[in-house]
Amino acid sequence: MTTAFIAVDWGTSSFRAAAMARDGAVLARVASGEGILKAAARGFEAVLFEEIAAIDAAGAPILLSGMIGSRNGWVEVPYARCPADAAALSAGAARMTVRGRALAFAPGLICDDESGRPDVMRGEETQIFGAVEGDATVVLPGTHSKWARFEGGRVVGFRSYMTGEMFAAMRHHTILGALAEGEADDAAAFADGARAGAADGALSHALFSARTMALTGRLSGRGVASYLSGLLIGAEIADGARRAGPGRPVVVVGEAGLAARYLAAGRALGVAMQAGPADAAFRGLARLAPSPGAVP
Amino acid sequence: MTTAFIAVDWGTSSFRAAAMARDGAVLARVASGEGILKAAARGFEAVLFEEIAAIDAAGAPILLSGMIGSRNGWVEVPYARCPADAAALSAGAARMTVRGRALAFAPGLICDDESGRPDVMRGEETQIFGAVEGDATVVLPGTHSKWARFEGGRVVGFRSYMTGEMFAAMRHHTILGALAEGEADDAAAFADGARAGAADGALSHALFSARTMALTGRLSGRGVASYLSGLLIGAEIADGARRAGPGRPVVVVGEAGLAARYLAAGRALGVAMQAGPADAAFRGLARLAPSPGAVP
Repeated sequence: MTTAFIAVDWGTSSFRAAAMARDGAVLARVASGEGILKAAARGFEAVLFEEIAAIDAAGAPILLSGMIGSRNGWVEVPYARCPADAAALSAGAARMTVRGRALAFAPGLICDDESGRPDVMRGEETQIFGAVEGDATVVLPGTHSKWARFEGGRVVGFRSYMTGEMFAAMRHHTILGALAEGEADDAAAFADGARAGAADGALSHALFSARTMALTGRLSGRGVASYLSGLLIGAEIADGARRAGPGRPVVVVGEAGLAARYLAAGRALGVAMQAGPADAAFRGLARLAPSPGAVP
Repeated sequence: MTTAFIAVDWGTSSFRAAAMARDGAVLARVASGEGILKAAARGFEAVLFEEIAAIDAAGAPILLSGMIGSRNGWVEVPYARCPADAAALSAGAARMTVRGRALAFAPGLICDDESGRPDVMRGEETQIFGAVEGDATVVLPGTHSKWARFEGGRVVGFRSYMTGEMFAAMRHHTILGALAEGEADDAAAFADGARAGAADGALSHALFSARTMALTGRLSGRGVASYLSGLLIGAEIADGARRAGPGRPVVVVGEAGLAARYLAAGRALGVAMQAGPADAAFRGLARLAPSPGAVP
């Protein structure tokens, strides 16, 4: 098959790209640590064409998503507002021509939560469209995890959770860090932490149990990091699952190891969750192309 | 009045002591930064007698509370279990004779929360007995805030919240820190943060609003730290107040500036709270003395 376009998933700390067929199939791929933080120094244009050189096809348009479209990226693309379908994302893309090539940067999404405060995502919106077609709740674990409701072909709303960043801050910059002995993966401690985080409505209280469980010998020092991870993920899942539409699949999209932790926490909590497809970002970029003949 | 005993409130980073009359009146006081972390190097005995020299009275017993009775202190005093009255604390004290003086170290308290996980306090139990006599909820803000239920002369249970430590970790070790411009006290941002923290049941989601509110221009960089502080305190108050017995006073005991922030957050949330007495630790130690004639 010939390359219809180049798909680029360009985040804060990683660069991934694929040569894509018209039907969304991945023909070839590259990946590196040239995220926007690192790439900014050398210039985004130079980095882009260097990184894709091995998979590039003359004249193919280039579709990009992720933090490359943020204030700290190449061009700041305004957020599209929820509810948003694929056409809205496509219409909101920023377009420019560079070295004779058509570039399109996907917009992020913005919505208001129940209390009227804004929430945002950038990059995950593309993964959502690549992960599901029918109604579902899509979970995108990470530094700032997202739970998105996908209904009728649209992202109708979503919530962010600072789970990953809180884990790092609590693990390394509080008294819990002093109790933790190493980063060994302790499945029992992780599951128990997930139950603790899900059972108590007050996260700042539940977190203290990592200390007291260790202090009273009910949790080993080697299990503290896993318990803490489970606790934060469990609190996120409990809140997200409570808000997910009943009977709809909960689909986890993300790096394999992290996705597996979410699925394990779901099992510990009795929340049915399933793994989403690989290459969600590339697949999503394919769906954002307005029509096969009009890429991008 | 003559000195009946010396009261010592000895925490992780501070040392406070008072010469006390038999009726619990403070006759003279000293304070320094000789907390247990610093004092350990020089030896607790030497530090104690140096620090109290200016207020000491020959032969007076010395009652101590706080982290000096912890694993990292002078002697590890086992936790007394809730519900606990003043007699139980007194009975659980560790006693020894040093330089011919009778020393008594108050025990901490331990209880189980609703999900059967342990919670602990050390030092706050003494403040509670010094703060109230009738039924009340006693709030002790700090690194690890405590909300204690005091009923029938006993501490029947309590919950810890990692509010202070989470603030420091989130303020200085997450993306929120990059958005915060200085530590100026912004009362409006603080109150709005308190409402955000109280309104949303998921703290890891609510915290993200500090970012998005700043990103969308609804919160200034100068207000981010106050908003974050309000958010964590608001979440704590919402959970604590929901569990407090209706109609009972909610009494805040602690350092004046921090207590004032809790009272301000309470006003923003419509939760009635009142300031407790000063010198709660010293007053509490007086109550732990089993009888006026039997100190300590």
